[in-house]
Amino acid sequence: MIKVGIIGATAYTSLELIKILLNHPEVKITYLGIRKTDRPRISDIFPSLKTRLDLPCETIDQEEIPKDIDVAFITLPPTISMQYVPLFTQRGIKVIDFSADYRFRDTNLYEQWYKKQHTDSSGIETAVYGLPELYKEEIKKTNLIGNPGCYTTATILALAPLLAKGLIYSEDIIVDAKSGVSGRGREPKEGTHYCECNENIEAYSVGGHRHSPEIEHILSLKTDQKVSIQFVPHLIPMNRGILCTIYVKPKYRTTETSDSDVHKLYKDFYNGEPFIRIKEANETPKTKDVIYTNFCDIAAKVTENRIIILSAIDNLIKGASGQAVQNMNVMCRFDEKTGLL
Amino acid sequence: MIKVGIIGATAYTSLELIKILLNHPEVKITYLGIRKTDRPRISDIFPSLKTRLDLPCETIDQEEIPKDIDVAFITLPPTISMQYVPLFTQRGIKVIDFSADYRFRDTNLYEQWYKKQHTDSSGIETAVYGLPELYKEEIKKTNLIGNPGCYTTATILALAPLLAKGLIYSEDIIVDAKSGVSGRGREPKEGTHYCECNENIEAYSVGGHRHSPEIEHILSLKTDQKVSIQFVPHLIPMNRGILCTIYVKPKYRTTETSDSDVHKLYKDFYNGEPFIRIKEANETPKTKDVIYTNFCDIAAKVTENRIIILSAIDNLIKGASGQAVQNMNVMCRFDEKTGLL
Amino acid sequence: MIKVGIIGATAYTSLELIKILLNHPEVKITYLGIRKTDRPRISDIFPSLKTRLDLPCETIDQEEIPKDIDVAFITLPPTISMQYVPLFTQRGIKVIDFSADYRFRDTNLYEQWYKKQHTDSSGIETAVYGLPELYKEEIKKTNLIGNPGCYTTATILALAPLLAKGLIYSEDIIVDAKSGVSGRGREPKEGTHYCECNENIEAYSVGGHRHSPEIEHILSLKTDQKVSIQFVPHLIPMNRGILCTIYVKPKYRTTETSDSDVHKLYKDFYNGEPFIRIKEANETPKTKDVIYTNFCDIAAKVTENRIIILSAIDNLIKGASGQAVQNMNVMCRFDEKTGLL
Amino acid sequence: MIKVGIIGATAYTSLELIKILLNHPEVKITYLGIRKTDRPRISDIFPSLKTRLDLPCETIDQEEIPKDIDVAFITLPPTISMQYVPLFTQRGIKVIDFSADYRFRDTNLYEQWYKKQHTDSSGIETAVYGLPELYKEEIKKTNLIGNPGCYTTATILALAPLLAKGLIYSEDIIVDAKSGVSGRGREPKEGTHYCECNENIEAYSVGGHRHSPEIEHILSLKTDQKVSIQFVPHLIPMNRGILCTIYVKPKYRTTETSDSDVHKLYKDFYNGEPFIRIKEANETPKTKDVIYTNFCDIAAKVTENRIIILSAIDNLIKGASGQAVQNMNVMCRFDEKTGLL
Repeated sequence: MIKVGIIGATAYTSLELIKILLNHPEVKITYLGIRKTDRPRISDIFPSLKTRLDLPCETIDQEEIPKDIDVAFITLPPTISMQYVPLFTQRGIKVIDFSADYRFRDTNLYEQWYKKQHTDSSGIETAVYGLPELYKEEIKKTNLIGNPGCYTTATILALAPLLAKGLIYSEDIIVDAKSGVSGRGREPKEGTHYCECNENIEAYSVGGHRHSPEIEHILSLKTDQKVSIQFVPHLIPMNRGILCTIYVKPKYRTTETSDSDVHKLYKDFYNGEPFIRIKEANETPKTKDVIYTNFCDIAAKVTENRIIILSAIDNLIKGASGQAVQNMNVMCRFDEKTGLL
Repeated sequence: MIKVGIIGATAYTSLELIKILLNHPEVKITYLGIRKTDRPRISDIFPSLKTRLDLPCETIDQEEIPKDIDVAFITLPPTISMQYVPLFTQRGIKVIDFSADYRFRDTNLYEQWYKKQHTDSSGIETAVYGLPELYKEEIKKTNLIGNPGCYTTATILALAPLLAKGLIYSEDIIVDAKSGVSGRGREPKEGTHYCECNENIEAYSVGGHRHSPEIEHILSLKTDQKVSIQFVPHLIPMNRGILCTIYVKPKYRTTETSDSDVHKLYKDFYNGEPFIRIKEANETPKTKDVIYTNFCDIAAKVTENRIIILSAIDNLIKGASGQAVQNMNVMCRFDEKTGLL
Repeated sequence: MIKVGIIGATAYTSLELIKILLNHPEVKITYLGIRKTDRPRISDIFPSLKTRLDLPCETIDQEEIPKDIDVAFITLPPTISMQYVPLFTQRGIKVIDFSADYRFRDTNLYEQWYKKQHTDSSGIETAVYGLPELYKEEIKKTNLIGNPGCYTTATILALAPLLAKGLIYSEDIIVDAKSGVSGRGREPKEGTHYCECNENIEAYSVGGHRHSPEIEHILSLKTDQKVSIQFVPHLIPMNRGILCTIYVKPKYRTTETSDSDVHKLYKDFYNGEPFIRIKEANETPKTKDVIYTNFCDIAAKVTENRIIILSAIDNLIKGASGQAVQNMNVMCRFDEKTGLL
Repeated sequence: MIKVGIIGATAYTSLELIKILLNHPEVKITYLGIRKTDRPRISDIFPSLKTRLDLPCETIDQEEIPKDIDVAFITLPPTISMQYVPLFTQRGIKVIDFSADYRFRDTNLYEQWYKKQHTDSSGIETAVYGLPELYKEEIKKTNLIGNPGCYTTATILALAPLLAKGLIYSEDIIVDAKSGVSGRGREPKEGTHYCECNENIEAYSVGGHRHSPEIEHILSLKTDQKVSIQFVPHLIPMNRGILCTIYVKPKYRTTETSDSDVHKLYKDFYNGEPFIRIKEANETPKTKDVIYTNFCDIAAKVTENRIIILSAIDNLIKGASGQAVQNMNVMCRFDEKTGLL
């Protein structure tokens, strides 16, 4: 059994992480850190954990971080996270960071979007982007993971096969994304008030969401071409789940590219991946089929002028905590599915 | 056309009030007051009002209140409201106050529950409880209305007929109440966060909610007996609507009191009241039938040991703003239904 | 006062229509027709109408249609509607038909999508497409309206200004549409089961929805060019409301087309239209701002490669019954806003 | 590993059962039976199971039931179930039946409520009521379980401690129950239509729900007194979860019975039970804390005249499939928590 700590224990993603880890046979949660100075039991913050994990949360102290843990999950906000990550990596503790701080290979790009100087450039250099379906070998060898965002995971997994094969125009991609409200975090604000979200749908950050550069950056690196997307996120009245509807332009006449060709391409690309499910021709991904799971369901449909790709994940699981555990499993050489399937 | 002002314009109840008044042929909204010092247009706060009412909100100034209005709707919180109400009544402006500050005939009772000394005892003396179905004649003659709360309206309207006829034990009453989230107000807090309310039901204030003394007070006064209730409110994942399920004990063997007797009693008691609908034997009130309306739907069902009464209203309309307009109509001698039906 | 009948009285759109008409000062509902043979009171089907409209529904008889009505709203399904419409128009009764049967100028196109021969080609010839913002003059002169669909209304209103000015490529348009569940009708089926819709989002009819040809047909006719769209509808867990997110490609470098240029274009195009609201630069349409109203809120945002247009309506009001009443107002020379604002 | 079959595989409870069993280390699902004659794969009916369980469903044939299973879960409707159960028990297969057919010790009572003659009276005699917190020893020894209903589980667990100690009047109990929509089953009907359930709350079966006799029967048998309840269920706009608010009258002056006395009573009564969590004084059960778990959260609050008990469960887990697996674990001498915690 390895010992794990969660730094930032009161986020929604941390609750999901705890629930997954409690069912993970190789892991014991030994440390919960928060930035506040009271010491609440985690089960007072999340009563669903009562009798399952009644551990008190500790105030995280940069001078004295917990040393007897093997893996640290950092669920702090971007720009805060990088203040803590090096404290762990320097001590040889494996780190899986949920923020954007270790997702970019390029500090300039990071600084442009997060408006703050990056203070851990050596971390950036060794960090691996934690999408196991694309970076499994690198994840096996690293001690520091930049765990992908939720919109990012759904979008990259949907686009990678067609981009990798060079079948679509990489700069003419539209991603219309829909997310449940937990994606907005646990802080009460007007945008998370029940009566403002319920019976409503709206777009936000039209023309510039922080997840677009992450998607473009990773897909460009991975597929060796300039990838450029138009990304519009929407808020949906449901707790969890993301659906991305993606419109791409095939380079070749679509009459020569059939639904079944594209279906086979996806099946082959993700062959052996336990958490990717490619839908059959007459099916579409539904968020209700993936919530509370680490699956990403994907369908692709060829139309006269476009290929439409649909991908669905649970934003808190495959889009955050499930993926983090999948990364831990790969890093620690456990079976990739342990605790997740 | 009379001129009306709304003091506390940014509450959810104010939005509903504005929408009703915009369709009221006898009324013009000329003043919107807020306690903050910026001067936003009301349609910037509530974009649904765009092009319908783009009036700027004024900072309410106790030294200089608007004088050229005929009716003031005060939608400020309890204990704040009584600081403003006298400023209007002293100038001969009719006031309909949404807070609890003018709902009690007894300042002691008020002070016990609201933990603050009442500063307008002369107001209390002249104020009328604004439930038109029970106090219509008094409403016609007053200049100051204590507009009832939402739970209170649903409960009093459901209980009044049986209590008035002395048919039930007045101190053995259970009110199990269920409310949509708008009843919690517009302020973002943990208890109004979408993910905390959605896919959840919970009771709150078990054993002591501020609405119980109001209900007991008014029903005791109105029906001349000590009324005592056990009131438990619940939060329901919907925007608006209240359902009260009320369990009372008949004084007489229920085999002698049939469903149709009780049905007739209710029909007679509310005869001519345009906003009370008594359901037939095989029907039950549903909040979806009353939301966005000023109706209160009521059913009573006789069982072996109890009579079960169900009542449904829209908490923002019959439980607040619709009732306020109904009160204004009665006070100003308009047809009671104007703007509401 | 004119007399109106509703043929197909038990649809969700009919309920909304009745509610609007009950507040319309120039109209009296005198006839409710259904295709079943029992004669339920409409308020037994929709208890929200109790005491407001307790009229019994009549079985519609092709031999003996009601003659003493001035306007008939036909809310029957496509291919059924055209069996009834001529019976009314032949008697000089104005007809507003909610189905697709009178929305196409071209019976071939209709027959291709609705798989049935059109039996009223003379009706088709005189019918006007009931989008008052585009066809007001024609509506004034006709006796037969093909009332637009909900997706169609939101899409056409969003695209018309840019297409009319020739500013975008008319065959490279993507419409990502999101609708509440009432758009699926009142029939209980797997796709309308609460637990299948709640906490879920999914796309449907990917690559071929009946509303695309209607949109393309009307926009092509109106703007004199071949318009071709990629339309993907999604089902959202809410009762009502439609949001369309539309991606178009400007013909001219967008650096020369600013947000404010496009904003002005929309403002000018819909100048004087009471139900169109163009959002300011920093605002986006939200369905909660338009539900229960006849408004269409529209925003346009210029990005590097695209213009993104957002439009929101209530599918049952501006997308059906409110628009029908707006059409009636124009046909009958009432103020266009009567009963709607 | 034991082999299990599910007879009635397409119910919502079966989906939950399958998900639990897929994570159960001692069990393999080898048979799925349905009453229809097509042979769909279970993952075509429930796409969330894709790649996890793609087993085809078999038509259940009374002549030829599957013999090589160790445990049969029967999820058929009441009155149908008893036609199949004996076929399994006669072959020595352990049966856990989800219907009401084996929950009563008294066929008369069953027949009075289910309007059908009971055809397996010998089954009734050996069957044990599958509430492990009350009948664990009996469950260990039986081969046939009548698995309790969802409302029943929540109510009996809440009332048993106070009734067992004789502290409350057993014939003056009010149970106000609230359930999510999955409690109504998977069949599409008006009462499960999204738009009829969403943004609505209503009571149903007021004055006579089938679960009252089950609750009264079991509690009377278990606590040796005549128990009589007033039970009113309500439908809540959420997928899953039940909250019961229960009002009981203490026999002794409640001033002598404090919150902490009652709290201790409940703690002692359920001491060692892994799935019962007694809330502290300042806490109340919330359905969101128990959904997707086998927990029952209970709180009791002493007021002037009553004790109010609140209990929350997931209707599909502790109210059906989780409890069934808990029963299987006890019957098969696995750890009671296996697959559930």
